[in-house]
Amino acid sequence: MSFGAASAQESDITIAVSIPAATHGWTGGVVYHAEQAEKEIEAAFPNIDIVLSTASSATAQVSSLEDLSATRDLDALVILPFTSEELTGPVEQVKSNGTFITVVDRGLSDTSVQDLYVAGDNIAVGANTAHWLADQLGGEGEIVVLRGIPTVIDDERIQGFSEVIAETDIEILDIQYANWNQDEAFTLMQDYLAKYPNIDAVWANDDDMLLGVIEAVDQAERDDIKFALGGNGMKEVIELVMAEDERTPISTPYPPSMIKSAIYMTVGQFNGQAPMRGSFLLDAPLITPENAEQFYFPDSPF
Amino acid sequence: MSFGAASAQESDITIAVSIPAATHGWTGGVVYHAEQAEKEIEAAFPNIDIVLSTASSATAQVSSLEDLSATRDLDALVILPFTSEELTGPVEQVKSNGTFITVVDRGLSDTSVQDLYVAGDNIAVGANTAHWLADQLGGEGEIVVLRGIPTVIDDERIQGFSEVIAETDIEILDIQYANWNQDEAFTLMQDYLAKYPNIDAVWANDDDMLLGVIEAVDQAERDDIKFALGGNGMKEVIELVMAEDERTPISTPYPPSMIKSAIYMTVGQFNGQAPMRGSFLLDAPLITPENAEQFYFPDSPF
Repeated sequence: MSFGAASAQESDITIAVSIPAATHGWTGGVVYHAEQAEKEIEAAFPNIDIVLSTASSATAQVSSLEDLSATRDLDALVILPFTSEELTGPVEQVKSNGTFITVVDRGLSDTSVQDLYVAGDNIAVGANTAHWLADQLGGEGEIVVLRGIPTVIDDERIQGFSEVIAETDIEILDIQYANWNQDEAFTLMQDYLAKYPNIDAVWANDDDMLLGVIEAVDQAERDDIKFALGGNGMKEVIELVMAEDERTPISTPYPPSMIKSAIYMTVGQFNGQAPMRGSFLLDAPLITPENAEQFYFPDSPF
Repeated sequence: MSFGAASAQESDITIAVSIPAATHGWTGGVVYHAEQAEKEIEAAFPNIDIVLSTASSATAQVSSLEDLSATRDLDALVILPFTSEELTGPVEQVKSNGTFITVVDRGLSDTSVQDLYVAGDNIAVGANTAHWLADQLGGEGEIVVLRGIPTVIDDERIQGFSEVIAETDIEILDIQYANWNQDEAFTLMQDYLAKYPNIDAVWANDDDMLLGVIEAVDQAERDDIKFALGGNGMKEVIELVMAEDERTPISTPYPPSMIKSAIYMTVGQFNGQAPMRGSFLLDAPLITPENAEQFYFPDSPF
């Protein structure tokens, strides 16, 4: 009895974390970093219990929210929603019990539901890459661009990139969708290579696609291509940056570890009564050989 | 020797915190919350050493930065700058050693110096108060407003408040400066009371000034004044809210505890490699009898 009481008192704050299952590289990283955060926080704060739950679809995430809030009192919920539309109502339901709501990456349809919002800056991902590239090319040259899946995320990255390039003499020869898919990016890049005898640089908008692009360029043995750049901070690409690869010397982060930022911030609200209601917009600083180690997680799948 | 080595390894991350000394209520709160954060963080993370330094002027803060970075390797600096102009260069100097820079509340003149920026939302302080007041007054009535010290902070609060009031039939009878000073607010409110036979509500823009306003209203025994509101979340005013005071039933936070948010976030960057570069804008949710306890620190001077 006394042991039970002591143990209940030890974990008097419960923070649920609801995230997509590791269906592709980026979400694999989210799961990895959420698990790390759980270990770190529980080791540091014996009074805090992190309850982690992954879901492989929006419907499954809705059910898992029902399970989480049916079986315990949640002080906080940190959620990376599968989709905005399907999750907004269920998260609102959890909030109605007095639970603090932290939303990560994809916003809900009704932003008044969230107490804290943590998000990456997709415009900066595009713009910071474009500034670096324009600088390296001396403001002129011919480039090709690959788009992801038609979404706000893709639109913002392309907008950030295009606005900077528009102020230079760099010509975008072609820009088409490859759906953030490595194989589709490989095929699209083969098309670009066949179509354009000179390409100074390629921007793949995402590191998954960049791997397909690099494969196509290597197979074609095309050495006109000075730079092949992506974005996201994938492990394999950070390794290229760390090795001072000439063609891929930089990346820009849109880090799955942002789930960790959200968990640490939520802990501050409950452990220290530190005010954490608000909006945290992550920068997308260039990842260079000098700072790459800060963005590198050798044990993460991403 | 071995003890020294072990102890050096235990505190392998050093985070300096540089803040103004407790010269008035709000900065007294900053010092209190920074001290609390130091205790909480050092208890939770034996590998982190928080080094707290207070300064009573911009010049003293510049010297203390020199001392801090001369005597140890700083992994991070969390700073609430006395002034933007005088501190920008010295903070840039600290950054040049590779130190992560977290800036709180007052921005530096060159924002590229900061890695993380944590700030309150002064427009929301004004706007959220105005929405509540307009609602309570049914969108009409006569009010007076007190301004603080002519600064961006004061301008933003007044802007947020005025824009909302402009969309109602509420008339602002008078609006003058009382420099965030309780005595000056007392005198200005006496003037207002003498000048205007009917005042439905007064907005003091800040809880320090609100205390002066309430004293003047009480001495004059004026019961036409339905609401006397401030802003900041000062302890004495939160106590009024908790007691469900009819004239002061709400406040809005511009919490000195934001120094704690900044310290917890910086810890996440170093303990967990959680990405914390970016901008965190705190909300200013209404403090009501229902949630007042979350904003109440009985042991804090503010």
